[in-house]
Amino acid sequence: MQHNLQDSISLLSRTPSALDALLRDLPETWTLPNEGESSWSVFDVVGHLIHGERTDWMTRARMILEFGETKAFERFDRFAQMRESQGKSLGQLLDEFACLRAENLEQLRRLSLGEEDLQKRGRHPALGAVTLSELLATWAAHDLTHLHQISRIMAHQCREAVGPWSKFLGVMQCGGHSAQA
Amino acid sequence: MQHNLQDSISLLSRTPSALDALLRDLPETWTLPNEGESSWSVFDVVGHLIHGERTDWMTRARMILEFGETKAFERFDRFAQMRESQGKSLGQLLDEFACLRAENLEQLRRLSLGEEDLQKRGRHPALGAVTLSELLATWAAHDLTHLHQISRIMAHQCREAVGPWSKFLGVMQCGGHSAQA
Repeated sequence: MQHNLQDSISLLSRTPSALDALLRDLPETWTLPNEGESSWSVFDVVGHLIHGERTDWMTRARMILEFGETKAFERFDRFAQMRESQGKSLGQLLDEFACLRAENLEQLRRLSLGEEDLQKRGRHPALGAVTLSELLATWAAHDLTHLHQISRIMAHQCREAVGPWSKFLGVMQCGGHSAQA
Repeated sequence: MQHNLQDSISLLSRTPSALDALLRDLPETWTLPNEGESSWSVFDVVGHLIHGERTDWMTRARMILEFGETKAFERFDRFAQMRESQGKSLGQLLDEFACLRAENLEQLRRLSLGEEDLQKRGRHPALGAVTLSELLATWAAHDLTHLHQISRIMAHQCREAVGPWSKFLGVMQCGGHSAQA
């Protein structure tokens, strides 16, 4: 389990630079349109990742260590980025995400979590009992779910341009898999 | 359409550094396992991207310009990386991909394609008539389909570790969408 924690940290520490390399200064034709209706754009997803850094992962980790199962986590606001990203550029959001992620990982390292800590339980408002270990693995998996989403949103923008090839491109068969907090 | 070409180039030029930032020196627990049975690992996918740079995209672009619809493209070998990546490290593959992509984009720029060129047609062995414009858009979309796949393969590796959260993570509901060349 300690090993898994290091694996999660390895991934968590790379996501901001991977998104930066992929998205910074990319034409807005890739990053501003969504997949139709009230779906998210790439810009919205980066805002959502920022909101998670501010309010979700380390906040919940500290709640588990402090309150255990006696106090349920706050529900995650999946629409906060619609307010919080207003007036910002994607470059600003990428900087903000990188900065918050680095701070959070520094705080995580300072906790020097041992195996016993990782097995401590908290209470998720919908899922019930969850362990700190599960929370930290989910933090990493949440990066992956949004990288998966970002590649799908971007592929949607060139759906027409690829012509008949769309049926060979797996990402264009992916209907999205809506998720909660 | 010229505009779409620039959009495709913007993305194509960023993929190698995005994959490098995400994957270089990441623990092999993320990059070597696959999704079961004969599915691909992250390592396999990077090998597949390399094979595309060597044999697919620019080769097909030149065929369209030279032969039009009179000569069908070679079928893409989707298993070539199983031979070609043998004995290499992921770091070597990332270097190779970055180098080949940069060379190919340089060759693409040197073609100075105009609107008339982009509308030229070639012949895909399964899809029939396709335009150069569609081929180049597919090159970019193919990066996205494999970024989508990489995030899904990696998420598969922490499926157990996230415990009950798996049902909230869209990437873990994605069954994969097998694709051809």
